[in-house]
Amino acid sequence: MTNILYVTASARKAGSLSRMLGDRFVTGWRTRDGQGDVTHRDVGTTPPPIISEAWVAAAFTPRPDRTAAQREMLALSDELIEEIRQAEMIVIATPMYNYGMPAALKAWVDQVVRIGETFSFDLSRGDFPLEPILSGKTLVLLTSSGEFDFAPGGMREGMGHLVPHLKTVSKYLGAARIHEVAIEYQEFKDARHDRSIAAAQAQVDALLAELAEGRATALA
Amino acid sequence: MTNILYVTASARKAGSLSRMLGDRFVTGWRTRDGQGDVTHRDVGTTPPPIISEAWVAAAFTPRPDRTAAQREMLALSDELIEEIRQAEMIVIATPMYNYGMPAALKAWVDQVVRIGETFSFDLSRGDFPLEPILSGKTLVLLTSSGEFDFAPGGMREGMGHLVPHLKTVSKYLGAARIHEVAIEYQEFKDARHDRSIAAAQAQVDALLAELAEGRATALA
Repeated sequence: MTNILYVTASARKAGSLSRMLGDRFVTGWRTRDGQGDVTHRDVGTTPPPIISEAWVAAAFTPRPDRTAAQREMLALSDELIEEIRQAEMIVIATPMYNYGMPAALKAWVDQVVRIGETFSFDLSRGDFPLEPILSGKTLVLLTSSGEFDFAPGGMREGMGHLVPHLKTVSKYLGAARIHEVAIEYQEFKDARHDRSIAAAQAQVDALLAELAEGRATALA
Repeated sequence: MTNILYVTASARKAGSLSRMLGDRFVTGWRTRDGQGDVTHRDVGTTPPPIISEAWVAAAFTPRPDRTAAQREMLALSDELIEEIRQAEMIVIATPMYNYGMPAALKAWVDQVVRIGETFSFDLSRGDFPLEPILSGKTLVLLTSSGEFDFAPGGMREGMGHLVPHLKTVSKYLGAARIHEVAIEYQEFKDARHDRSIAAAQAQVDALLAELAEGRATALA
């Protein structure tokens, strides 16, 4: 039994390739492991509020000192963080928008990376005062991009900020292992795109088999 | 005379170091060049809406075919893009939140990178079908981060996704030249932070002098 948090970030429902991959993963997982709960958080169609000055003040106020308004201000953040805490596996299905996270996904990240909840802060630790609080989770990143070849050595090396950024913040999600599957070439709508979709679907299926058998050992 | 678009992205007003740098730049510029207009777009306190499925559909509908509702859906985007068009210089003052753009700034980027407005798209161009429409502008990036040493060779190399991401999208803002000034160490509140603030202030003043004299030649 594995509890999954399934986060979808595309603004689109129909035609979203990242949702297609995510749905394939989650449906496949349910088929193999019927008992785990899947919590679906669709930030793409229902983005969390962008954090405000009042939110920041509330988050940095020690819990016992928070006013009722401050507790209310953090209620959604509490809920989103609790969803992460309860999950053994986090599946983030997201498109690349303008070379990085959709604003909706970044709004979610900004709501869940929170002092005393997902990281602790102690200046006595020296140059690295932040430490993650959560641990041991599996993170699956399922992405789709219009362009292609963002990897090191590729023609768009250094232009893809979606996966690298998610990897940097993944420790605050408690990720111990990260798996990636990407569709590329979406805006070209050519044979390369068709092959990219087929390859990504096969990779999702292979990843499901690996994870089910406990063979997946990719490190974060 | 230089028209400036001044974009501020911090959720905070009081205590925001990126706003302090931005205000210093804009005030200094006004002192030197009294005639230019400064348009202030404060996405930090008033974030643009996160783009939705309906927004995407409207943006990809040819202008003559748009419904009244679609024109309304794009009205703010039109306004934000017009602000960029009118500017010879774009000053973006932004904190790093969770190793990248605040969601509010990404919401602005997602509203202004738009087909037929800030980029054109033509598959006959081959592997790079997108081309920027705007050009010739100066982009000034004024940033603040809690941590430090994100540069190549630094102890946090590869973890800083704010400036690299902004540089990638900068071509769609028409940036021909980019200048950067950064404050670091904000969460340490130590002597290194004090020195970082003082150095950044001096760099802003030097940049103002260079720009006023037309000596600034940094390439995007």
